[in-house]
Amino acid sequence: MIKDDKNLQDAGRYGRPISMAQTMKTLAALSELVGGRLVGDGATVVDGLADLESANAGQLTFLTHEKNIDLLSRSQAAAAVVPISVMEYALPVIQVRDPNLAFAIIHNHFLDHSFHVKGIDSRAVVGLDCQIPEAVTIGPLVVLGKGVILGQRVTLEPGVVVGDDVRIGDDTTLKANVTVGTGTIIGCRVTVHAGTVIGSDGFGYATDHLGHHIKRPQVGIVQIDDDVEIGSNVCIDRATFGKTWVKRGVKIDNLVQIGHNVVVGEDSIIVAQVGISGSTTLGTGVVLGGQAGVAGHLTIGDRVMAAAKTGIHADLPAKAVVSGFPAISHPLWLRISSLLVKLPEVVKDVRALKKQITELNRQ
Amino acid sequence: MIKDDKNLQDAGRYGRPISMAQTMKTLAALSELVGGRLVGDGATVVDGLADLESANAGQLTFLTHEKNIDLLSRSQAAAAVVPISVMEYALPVIQVRDPNLAFAIIHNHFLDHSFHVKGIDSRAVVGLDCQIPEAVTIGPLVVLGKGVILGQRVTLEPGVVVGDDVRIGDDTTLKANVTVGTGTIIGCRVTVHAGTVIGSDGFGYATDHLGHHIKRPQVGIVQIDDDVEIGSNVCIDRATFGKTWVKRGVKIDNLVQIGHNVVVGEDSIIVAQVGISGSTTLGTGVVLGGQAGVAGHLTIGDRVMAAAKTGIHADLPAKAVVSGFPAISHPLWLRISSLLVKLPEVVKDVRALKKQITELNRQ
Amino acid sequence: MIKDDKNLQDAGRYGRPISMAQTMKTLAALSELVGGRLVGDGATVVDGLADLESANAGQLTFLTHEKNIDLLSRSQAAAAVVPISVMEYALPVIQVRDPNLAFAIIHNHFLDHSFHVKGIDSRAVVGLDCQIPEAVTIGPLVVLGKGVILGQRVTLEPGVVVGDDVRIGDDTTLKANVTVGTGTIIGCRVTVHAGTVIGSDGFGYATDHLGHHIKRPQVGIVQIDDDVEIGSNVCIDRATFGKTWVKRGVKIDNLVQIGHNVVVGEDSIIVAQVGISGSTTLGTGVVLGGQAGVAGHLTIGDRVMAAAKTGIHADLPAKAVVSGFPAISHPLWLRISSLLVKLPEVVKDVRALKKQITELNRQ
Repeated sequence: MIKDDKNLQDAGRYGRPISMAQTMKTLAALSELVGGRLVGDGATVVDGLADLESANAGQLTFLTHEKNIDLLSRSQAAAAVVPISVMEYALPVIQVRDPNLAFAIIHNHFLDHSFHVKGIDSRAVVGLDCQIPEAVTIGPLVVLGKGVILGQRVTLEPGVVVGDDVRIGDDTTLKANVTVGTGTIIGCRVTVHAGTVIGSDGFGYATDHLGHHIKRPQVGIVQIDDDVEIGSNVCIDRATFGKTWVKRGVKIDNLVQIGHNVVVGEDSIIVAQVGISGSTTLGTGVVLGGQAGVAGHLTIGDRVMAAAKTGIHADLPAKAVVSGFPAISHPLWLRISSLLVKLPEVVKDVRALKKQITELNRQ
Repeated sequence: MIKDDKNLQDAGRYGRPISMAQTMKTLAALSELVGGRLVGDGATVVDGLADLESANAGQLTFLTHEKNIDLLSRSQAAAAVVPISVMEYALPVIQVRDPNLAFAIIHNHFLDHSFHVKGIDSRAVVGLDCQIPEAVTIGPLVVLGKGVILGQRVTLEPGVVVGDDVRIGDDTTLKANVTVGTGTIIGCRVTVHAGTVIGSDGFGYATDHLGHHIKRPQVGIVQIDDDVEIGSNVCIDRATFGKTWVKRGVKIDNLVQIGHNVVVGEDSIIVAQVGISGSTTLGTGVVLGGQAGVAGHLTIGDRVMAAAKTGIHADLPAKAVVSGFPAISHPLWLRISSLLVKLPEVVKDVRALKKQITELNRQ
Repeated sequence: MIKDDKNLQDAGRYGRPISMAQTMKTLAALSELVGGRLVGDGATVVDGLADLESANAGQLTFLTHEKNIDLLSRSQAAAAVVPISVMEYALPVIQVRDPNLAFAIIHNHFLDHSFHVKGIDSRAVVGLDCQIPEAVTIGPLVVLGKGVILGQRVTLEPGVVVGDDVRIGDDTTLKANVTVGTGTIIGCRVTVHAGTVIGSDGFGYATDHLGHHIKRPQVGIVQIDDDVEIGSNVCIDRATFGKTWVKRGVKIDNLVQIGHNVVVGEDSIIVAQVGISGSTTLGTGVVLGGQAGVAGHLTIGDRVMAAAKTGIHADLPAKAVVSGFPAISHPLWLRISSLLVKLPEVVKDVRALKKQITELNRQ
């Protein structure tokens, strides 16, 4: 049975297409795009990208490390992006300082990012006093509260629920089943993946003499600045007063917890399952590895890096590189970790030494 | 373009208003409310609350610690809630034992918590044999199964899905996109934040001789008692048999995992990203720090406190305070953590001692 | 007030019924089902199952460990499944090698797993060119993109959002508010619990000279094979290229993170809040305990077991059993953990030894 209901034609096209736009590009044009050095025939045409193993005869591939050059020689690709250090090549190449970066730029260039206006689906629910431009795509079963203001080319996928007085900037996409609480401010070119909750109450209570917890009202907001990407099933709590603030260019992975009144500095990277407790401030370009945790009311300096599973319990100066719980310098943590496995031997040695000393003292 | 569709007027007002009800209150009345000692003009009128930095001339602020008294002297606030120990004050104050608690009580008093009845939105889906009083607010795109029983003043936000035979008590709110499984019982004055799943299957399998996992059917329920608050994207599994039970007054933060047949004792606090494995029982007033984990089939005594990232693998007596993994007493953990960074030195010392002893023995 | 709107009769019956189908079964038939040895009257009839404490006079119960035999003698049950080692019994029993497994098989046998066809709810949204057989149950407020292909007896609960070109096999159930991204392939007899997100973008960026993160497009898919069960609020990211792959029989608990291009081998068990970073491959029958983490680009051998909270940072050979962070062999970890609490004493001993040696050397 084929379901082909013409009245429902607005339903489709959520998520990006898997296949790339099949536009042909010359190697010369792509090399210019990434500021690379072209070696070989610039008129070579490629029609897509793929990794070393799966690239076919019409595609561009990329080599990250010189050590994998054997894979490149066996690749079917028409051309490759390679590090500057690579000097041998059987096929046309674009030499660049950072092949990953060049490849990302070229890949984005190949993809069709043009916006398809679908307007507001008739099965969406829109509150009073909203300001919505014509160039938007609001899917079925989206619910907007009162006074919501949307920018140009905003996409809201099915199941998105947006509270009152929320503002969302141009070219921002909220994927399916995202919830955005009252008063949240979201910037331009932001992507929020499915199931994420922005702006629910912070976790704050005062405890009375009976041990009962009295809720501290959470009346602040969340502000997400431009060019932020937020993963799936993330939680970002609204502030008690004031705002929880995720600044420009921050990238947040899945299942991350960001407490009330946290500030995440520009271009920070927060890997999956990290938790940041209330009122902590991260500087610019901070990187927190997966499952790391940061206690509340701390100040973490610019460009601090914390390894996976780190537990940060104290302020950290700029550029600190830490591991472990409690967090210590990463090199020291590596040293201690390698010594810990010798602890049984150390304990044995100490016992033997005590015996020997006792013996010596007796003599 | 302004979207102002009068047919859609039920859509708005999800979440709490940011601004407080602008009722004027006298300091004398507020002091009485919290059992405080009033110093200064009790006729002083305040029209809202704010923290020390942002309070303006008509507002009440609060000082938590005596050490921050300088901030108070610079505050624009009309009056302040202060600890009893504070003796100098340039403005009228309410002295209390616990300023945090007094402030929470006053803040709740200022907020407009009155219930706005909106009834059942025409775009909600209600199953057969439900019992729903008139004083409820059921948003668009809510789905209720069969035989659901709702109390007075229940609020169900858009996207909430409630299974068959669920009972929900008075004054309870389920925020957007919450899922409640079949047979769940939820008490009065409970708040469940967005994206949370209550009553999905516990994780139980038996493994056959081929290594295939056979599902153990999960046929129990979840029971949530009165005055519980549950954060966003939390998971609380239904019991295998019987019930998973979250008792009165428990507060659960975001992204917490509660396994099947777990019992969480009254007034316990479960911070973000904690995981509690199946069939474990927590006593009254237990506090589990962020990212802590508790193994299955354990009994954790009343008022146990576990620091962030603690891994509890064995029963704990009442009032135990633990840290680390495996969990040990918190003071011992602090001592060990401070010694661990000296481990390289200790290992070096032991090696030197061995040499010296060998030398002494040779002599 | 009773809400009983006949137009809404499609809404109900999400989730499994709590009560079991009340079919009577003889002990002889059940013993044959599980290949057990029957002791007592095979004509004994039971009408349901329960655990030792709550079983009533018509029910079958089960004893896992011989040591709990006292509980069995006090049980009200009509009969019991017991280990082979149990030799005394006051009631009819089925002796089996693995009572847990036998009980799971019998319990599934008692439950009514027959499929109730409800078709496509009129409030569901179905895209163009979908292939949907008649024997499905698609609840209200489900949204399917274009070109979705569903197998026989698929159940999609309310709030499910399925992207374009997704294929879902026979007898698969997606619970409420699940999101499935474009191009995802899901096998037969798969269950995905509420709030889970399958197929959102992997977390991949390249960083430019300004420290800005450029998104690496994620154009691969997720493939979920037959007989997989996935918990609530899980995240499984689509591949950068190619596929993220969860193989046959894998069981995944709640709040788990699975990164792009991860491969999870057949029959693996992933407990709650585990995180697996991108491009890591798990072998067959791997078990990862709660809150464990696995770094990216690793190869974890067949039947590896990692305890709760383990942090795996390097490849592991088949059958390795590991704990701790960094992960080491479980027995060594146990030994070190027991010695760590003696570290203060060891440090004291070393200091004392140094003094004594100095003294001895002086003499």
